[in-house]
Amino acid sequence: MSASLSRRLAAEFLGTFFLLATVVGSGIMGEALADGNAAIALLANTIPTGAILVVMITMLGPISGAHFNPAVTAGFLMRKDIAPGEAGAYVVAQILGGILGALVAHIMFELPVLQASTTVRTGPGQWVAESVATFGLMFTILATLRARPQAVPMAVGLYITAAYWFTASTSFANPAVTIARGFTDTFSGIRPTDIPAFIAVQLLGAAVAVMVARAVTEEEGGARALSNKGR
Amino acid sequence: MSASLSRRLAAEFLGTFFLLATVVGSGIMGEALADGNAAIALLANTIPTGAILVVMITMLGPISGAHFNPAVTAGFLMRKDIAPGEAGAYVVAQILGGILGALVAHIMFELPVLQASTTVRTGPGQWVAESVATFGLMFTILATLRARPQAVPMAVGLYITAAYWFTASTSFANPAVTIARGFTDTFSGIRPTDIPAFIAVQLLGAAVAVMVARAVTEEEGGARALSNKGR
Amino acid sequence: MSASLSRRLAAEFLGTFFLLATVVGSGIMGEALADGNAAIALLANTIPTGAILVVMITMLGPISGAHFNPAVTAGFLMRKDIAPGEAGAYVVAQILGGILGALVAHIMFELPVLQASTTVRTGPGQWVAESVATFGLMFTILATLRARPQAVPMAVGLYITAAYWFTASTSFANPAVTIARGFTDTFSGIRPTDIPAFIAVQLLGAAVAVMVARAVTEEEGGARALSNKGR
Amino acid sequence: MSASLSRRLAAEFLGTFFLLATVVGSGIMGEALADGNAAIALLANTIPTGAILVVMITMLGPISGAHFNPAVTAGFLMRKDIAPGEAGAYVVAQILGGILGALVAHIMFELPVLQASTTVRTGPGQWVAESVATFGLMFTILATLRARPQAVPMAVGLYITAAYWFTASTSFANPAVTIARGFTDTFSGIRPTDIPAFIAVQLLGAAVAVMVARAVTEEEGGARALSNKGR
Repeated sequence: MSASLSRRLAAEFLGTFFLLATVVGSGIMGEALADGNAAIALLANTIPTGAILVVMITMLGPISGAHFNPAVTAGFLMRKDIAPGEAGAYVVAQILGGILGALVAHIMFELPVLQASTTVRTGPGQWVAESVATFGLMFTILATLRARPQAVPMAVGLYITAAYWFTASTSFANPAVTIARGFTDTFSGIRPTDIPAFIAVQLLGAAVAVMVARAVTEEEGGARALSNKGR
Repeated sequence: MSASLSRRLAAEFLGTFFLLATVVGSGIMGEALADGNAAIALLANTIPTGAILVVMITMLGPISGAHFNPAVTAGFLMRKDIAPGEAGAYVVAQILGGILGALVAHIMFELPVLQASTTVRTGPGQWVAESVATFGLMFTILATLRARPQAVPMAVGLYITAAYWFTASTSFANPAVTIARGFTDTFSGIRPTDIPAFIAVQLLGAAVAVMVARAVTEEEGGARALSNKGR
Repeated sequence: MSASLSRRLAAEFLGTFFLLATVVGSGIMGEALADGNAAIALLANTIPTGAILVVMITMLGPISGAHFNPAVTAGFLMRKDIAPGEAGAYVVAQILGGILGALVAHIMFELPVLQASTTVRTGPGQWVAESVATFGLMFTILATLRARPQAVPMAVGLYITAAYWFTASTSFANPAVTIARGFTDTFSGIRPTDIPAFIAVQLLGAAVAVMVARAVTEEEGGARALSNKGR
Repeated sequence: MSASLSRRLAAEFLGTFFLLATVVGSGIMGEALADGNAAIALLANTIPTGAILVVMITMLGPISGAHFNPAVTAGFLMRKDIAPGEAGAYVVAQILGGILGALVAHIMFELPVLQASTTVRTGPGQWVAESVATFGLMFTILATLRARPQAVPMAVGLYITAAYWFTASTSFANPAVTIARGFTDTFSGIRPTDIPAFIAVQLLGAAVAVMVARAVTEEEGGARALSNKGR
């Protein structure tokens, strides 16, 4: 990867900014317009999120790898595809970009800029859901990188489109998204006290995915060098 | 195909696992949120299912061929593209993966893990629908493999998206899916006693598709070797 | 194009069969489930139709060119890309395939097999809509064939997805589709007496598109030979 | 770019014509059918708009660059990728095509041809939304042109699909679209007195995007020559 670290961090910041602006903003818009039908509101939240992921990963992937997600960065760190210091900087950029995205969504919809969510999201079903969701996301990234690197943006966008609906938690699957959604008391929010458990199971899911992907998708030797290229 | 059999079976297991987690999970979520509007619930079931199929076939196709479907495996067996013993192992992996996917969906939504469906799905309209649906699916796979192998994941995802709506049965088109859906008494379930007839007409549809695809899409000679490559 | 005429006609028949099974079937399903909300019913009609078009054109394009539409065949005839006798045979295969698709949809939904529509679709707004819709469709095919032939399936599917909604007629844009929809008294039907005017303005739109596409997209010389390749 | 100026202007005119016919037409259709559910109406407006953008950019990109948007043309002018006189002609073609598209939508739906919108769209939230939306659009175009030029049509279509929902303004993000929507007193309209502020912040957003894209996506030297190729 030839991009300088500052450009890579800018890419992580911008991508996570637009991801959260979309998650939070489309949640606000969908709920406002859906006339009480929660399935329509969730569709209006799902379709934009899947779409923006395809866009952001397509255009920023060649710069930073387009993680936009500390669990993904942690997975690549576990694979030694990224250095620890760089991984830490990625995570900071992701969290800051995500929070700013949520706040800008509030500004656009003329809501109080600073909010704290009161939406309860807890319990074993939610935790299983988040671990499965993040396992699937990390596995999708790693297996698609091997199978057809150019398809990663589409695969991630479509995976999240599905995971919004097959998981009981609507698939946060991303610690930066989870933290930023703590800052909005709208459709997509999560109560701050519920955040740590979400992050823990997300990291667990990503770690298991790294191991399963290695066993299922990789031949002996030489796969590792591939992982950060071609996105 | 260079992947070892165990890795191929793992791919079939994982792909069918996520397929069923999505079919069953998004059915539960869609019905819970749709406020009684069945079309919205079915859209919420359709879009994730089409999406997850594209993802799974894209990334697991190069490993196992990404059948995830005993009718498809039977079609390839009929074409002598897969050995009988291997085909049998594929079918076992698909069924086990599918059932586990349904059960994990129950766990995520905090429902009883073990269920048996009570949803009646029977009658000549349903049987014609399932045979047409599976005919179309198998034909799509074979004809797209010849026309543009890289497009198979997209073609299958979009075909199922359409077939959910143009068939009276919402297009199971897959014996492993059918069996696994017998294990859930939620939106996507099927009463166990209705399963054998579904499977019979699905296999019939797939067999006819193999014959029609040979007549319509293949020139004299040499086509067979193509079928398991390039996915 | 190397495929024999019988295989090409089979491809036209099959593609138009699935197109109409989808248009009519998803119309029935959508209306049955949408609880009186016509926009949801039309979404449930639109998404499957766009999806099946992408699938059918992707896999049958290399065989027959994937017209599935007498107006498109007429446009290629006007360009001398297809011989008159062959064009006539194409149109017959398209109409027969389309009618059979509508009837099979009735069988799947256990409705009377033979029906005649009573849905009035007439008046200047509808006629302008159909001519604009078919102009856009033929222009899309010709311009995309020049710009990026591999993108034709996606372009046609997405164009029809849009045209369902931007035209007052929901964009039939296809004489074979129009005739076949005369055979169903369900959501997607059209009263037989309204069919001739639809077909007339569809053919007009396609003819204008051939002329405009030549002026806008083609350099001097040599473009014609391209038109039937690469699909 | 080898196409003559008249052909390029025809491409800009046609593309913006279909864009506005879709925005205005699908707005009319969606609102008429959605039975008062504004989220469904907006989905019925979003999906066709995203779809038609992919189609138009795919097929007209190789001719004119497929701007269809004075803010995008201004961005390329700022980069010296297009000459000032040519940029002016582009903008005229875009505005005329857009207005005609809106009027033809009225004709198709048998509404008064000439209308003026009375829909109020003003205030700081809307202005922030339009600047963010146009920033994201221009950044998407420039960054995707560098990362994968063939993906620009898909990226723009999906970006607008997302932006419809994450911005409080439903993302006009285009002065020609804004002006043309002043001519319709239907779902998608904007009161003429609110137009100038929209255009101002759109141009601001595009200008900022040009600067940010240069900093984030471009290495030293030689990037400029790329920008108008490969679309």
